[in-house]
Amino acid sequence: MRLNCDIGESFGAWTMGLDAEVMPLIDQANIACGFHAGDPVVMQNTVRLALAHGVTLGAHPAYPDLQGFGRRSMACRPEEIEALVLYQVGALQHIAAAEGGTLAYVKPHGALYNDMMRDPAVLSAILTALERSPLPLALMAMSTANNDNLRQQCAQHGVPVLLEAFADRAYDRTGFIVSRNTPGAVYEDAGAIVQQAKAFAAGQPIQSLCGQPLQLEVDTLCVHGDNPGSVQAVKAIRAALEELV
Amino acid sequence: MRLNCDIGESFGAWTMGLDAEVMPLIDQANIACGFHAGDPVVMQNTVRLALAHGVTLGAHPAYPDLQGFGRRSMACRPEEIEALVLYQVGALQHIAAAEGGTLAYVKPHGALYNDMMRDPAVLSAILTALERSPLPLALMAMSTANNDNLRQQCAQHGVPVLLEAFADRAYDRTGFIVSRNTPGAVYEDAGAIVQQAKAFAAGQPIQSLCGQPLQLEVDTLCVHGDNPGSVQAVKAIRAALEELV
Amino acid sequence: MRLNCDIGESFGAWTMGLDAEVMPLIDQANIACGFHAGDPVVMQNTVRLALAHGVTLGAHPAYPDLQGFGRRSMACRPEEIEALVLYQVGALQHIAAAEGGTLAYVKPHGALYNDMMRDPAVLSAILTALERSPLPLALMAMSTANNDNLRQQCAQHGVPVLLEAFADRAYDRTGFIVSRNTPGAVYEDAGAIVQQAKAFAAGQPIQSLCGQPLQLEVDTLCVHGDNPGSVQAVKAIRAALEELV
Amino acid sequence: MRLNCDIGESFGAWTMGLDAEVMPLIDQANIACGFHAGDPVVMQNTVRLALAHGVTLGAHPAYPDLQGFGRRSMACRPEEIEALVLYQVGALQHIAAAEGGTLAYVKPHGALYNDMMRDPAVLSAILTALERSPLPLALMAMSTANNDNLRQQCAQHGVPVLLEAFADRAYDRTGFIVSRNTPGAVYEDAGAIVQQAKAFAAGQPIQSLCGQPLQLEVDTLCVHGDNPGSVQAVKAIRAALEELV
Repeated sequence: MRLNCDIGESFGAWTMGLDAEVMPLIDQANIACGFHAGDPVVMQNTVRLALAHGVTLGAHPAYPDLQGFGRRSMACRPEEIEALVLYQVGALQHIAAAEGGTLAYVKPHGALYNDMMRDPAVLSAILTALERSPLPLALMAMSTANNDNLRQQCAQHGVPVLLEAFADRAYDRTGFIVSRNTPGAVYEDAGAIVQQAKAFAAGQPIQSLCGQPLQLEVDTLCVHGDNPGSVQAVKAIRAALEELV
Repeated sequence: MRLNCDIGESFGAWTMGLDAEVMPLIDQANIACGFHAGDPVVMQNTVRLALAHGVTLGAHPAYPDLQGFGRRSMACRPEEIEALVLYQVGALQHIAAAEGGTLAYVKPHGALYNDMMRDPAVLSAILTALERSPLPLALMAMSTANNDNLRQQCAQHGVPVLLEAFADRAYDRTGFIVSRNTPGAVYEDAGAIVQQAKAFAAGQPIQSLCGQPLQLEVDTLCVHGDNPGSVQAVKAIRAALEELV
Repeated sequence: MRLNCDIGESFGAWTMGLDAEVMPLIDQANIACGFHAGDPVVMQNTVRLALAHGVTLGAHPAYPDLQGFGRRSMACRPEEIEALVLYQVGALQHIAAAEGGTLAYVKPHGALYNDMMRDPAVLSAILTALERSPLPLALMAMSTANNDNLRQQCAQHGVPVLLEAFADRAYDRTGFIVSRNTPGAVYEDAGAIVQQAKAFAAGQPIQSLCGQPLQLEVDTLCVHGDNPGSVQAVKAIRAALEELV
Repeated sequence: MRLNCDIGESFGAWTMGLDAEVMPLIDQANIACGFHAGDPVVMQNTVRLALAHGVTLGAHPAYPDLQGFGRRSMACRPEEIEALVLYQVGALQHIAAAEGGTLAYVKPHGALYNDMMRDPAVLSAILTALERSPLPLALMAMSTANNDNLRQQCAQHGVPVLLEAFADRAYDRTGFIVSRNTPGAVYEDAGAIVQQAKAFAAGQPIQSLCGQPLQLEVDTLCVHGDNPGSVQAVKAIRAALEELV
């Protein structure tokens, strides 16, 4: 199981995230592409940091919404989504290539990610972009109790899928993460976070919020580098995973 | 001598230029990349149109200034310029690649073009971007009476140069085009435009605004598709060039 | 019955709409405020044009989405909507005040308008902005078969309402305009358009798409200045209304 | 002598500055208006914070350049500058008015401020905006060894001027602050900062970087709330000023 992290989310004069501290701890960097965060200079610096640590590069495209940080769903048509994914992935790929790197996958950001999980037309638009790209890009998406539809869609477009899970979030019985507004949705306790991470890594079921066992396929675990606490959590997860191996 | 044209300058609901009419008449399409014009959907449509007519694809990157249409000089640092060129070129290249095309050259737009011709630091930043790109991109730049410095700079970065001239603009004796504010700077007369185009194509000197002969090296002629009149001028130039051959 | 028109929808180098031709024909100008169209210079020119023709000034605020022209619904929180309405209205009011004018009303644009008609939280956020403004602003909203809820909401916030109707659109039996995707939704025939306008002005029922009579309260009729055809329609409507009086 | 501070420079998900800590220490808040920082929600929160502490409200308009934080000079025409100042000031004024506040002055931000001090056409455009505004707005500008031209220009437009100085910056003999690139340009030592602040407040000359006495007229001192160190400096300045009185 790999660790992935949203990164490169600074913009112009604004800094976000402890990128330098979390980069050495992760395997896959989901790099913002300028539509919700990450201007060209930030993208270039982020690519350099990732390559210096041997971290796999991924694109983190979003709706065009800097003010909303890509977290506000926008009613884009499928052809708009296909084109904006191609645009953002290409911009990052070129910056990466100038540094001797290349992208391995795409993880849609924020509302685009949520819309992709909910709306087949959005998923299809994103997969069409990846299918038409000359780059051999995988799609990083959320693992749920039943990934058959997702896998089928990806296969039809010839796009490999990377299933991700969340160590610090409670799941419902369908394998969707519980909304942040629900009490208990976000784990604060480091022990609980590490325990869920270890279960994913070992291929064991976790406990859903309603108390039932939930088995998820997990290729990669989403971790966070927003603040010192989340970086500490990544360190603890990394240490626990190394013990497992 | 080829004909190049700024194209794909619509944005969202706003249409600009008679792209469908001028595309069949040109050889090289300078396609806007989203910073001064051209959203991802417009870029995709423009690439398709160009490929349908066998037109060579070029990127037309600009300062980030939609409202000013990239015509307002911005005091960007060289590393900002390098990164924004890589970003825009990569975005367009990926959209082109999804259509089976690839970019052949880069022509900076508007104020970025003017700044490049005036300020060696801007030229160097743009050339650094092209040098570091894995794509074999030429730089399209303005031909003047003495292109030695430009050629030298490009050679140092290993970037081929495409020298362009303007059929509808008056030149001063140094081979720079005369500012639009000067009387006589822009030719309206179709005959004069065609005559200057023919001189360029034949490798003959033109007459500068002060009446002296001016010899320019010309690889490509910049034409315009803004309105019916300019499309007519392109047709006349195209016909005149075919007669020459 | 007044005539209102969306106007000032140019942006930077892009021109949209025949503002100079339609302005003399209308009573109320819904002026774009920079978020979907209309930069500060365009806004200033539009205000001047409106004042020169004695046209009442209205603000036409939108979601922050230039590329989508404000037509893509965005999942903004109510406090975001309240703030973005205050922002846009204030920007236009100040530009108007510098010309000796003042705003009389607010008509939300595009997706914000549609969301307002559908979602009470959006309507409430907009009304909160207007209630808290020191300006005596009315809200322009769509008249339907039953305006009780709308009137009640506006009254609770102390905001007068201006009910608008559409001469060129078919209505369903609830008094909502039929989606553009439905056949027959948009009237092209000038006679039909003028007839529906006259019915509204005379306080007579129109015929809904399903053939039943529909009575709408109408304070103002929305007309368009996009192209020569729509300007001709406005002229015909204006002439028909003057005959009525 | 008052203390003014650039504030409200967060944007969307990005936080900048210790606004809550510095607001109780200052007299005048230069509030970002959305073009370089400060979205509508941030502006509303900043106005509320300022009013809660009885701080005078000022607008801090900028060139339209979020990525460059308004620090990159842009070649805007005077009419563009006039319109963008009116736009931004109006947006903030309306948000302020909804909270029961009103703006007292305008301090251009970053590159617009520098351009205003250097280029009479920029100053004139800004003053034209303020003159045409119905609000009784002062212009906050940099005090130099000779403020005659500035005062004259402002008087011609009927705009009061607030002269500001900097406690943490070295001055050259003409009373301009020395560029940050010059060694010694920025004072880090709290003692030196407080000493310069006290000299300004007492109407005494300071020492320019070349060692000569420099007498400046100072209505207000620019302080910073970027980080804990700068907030400490403001506290020390505030304490020193209260001792003086």
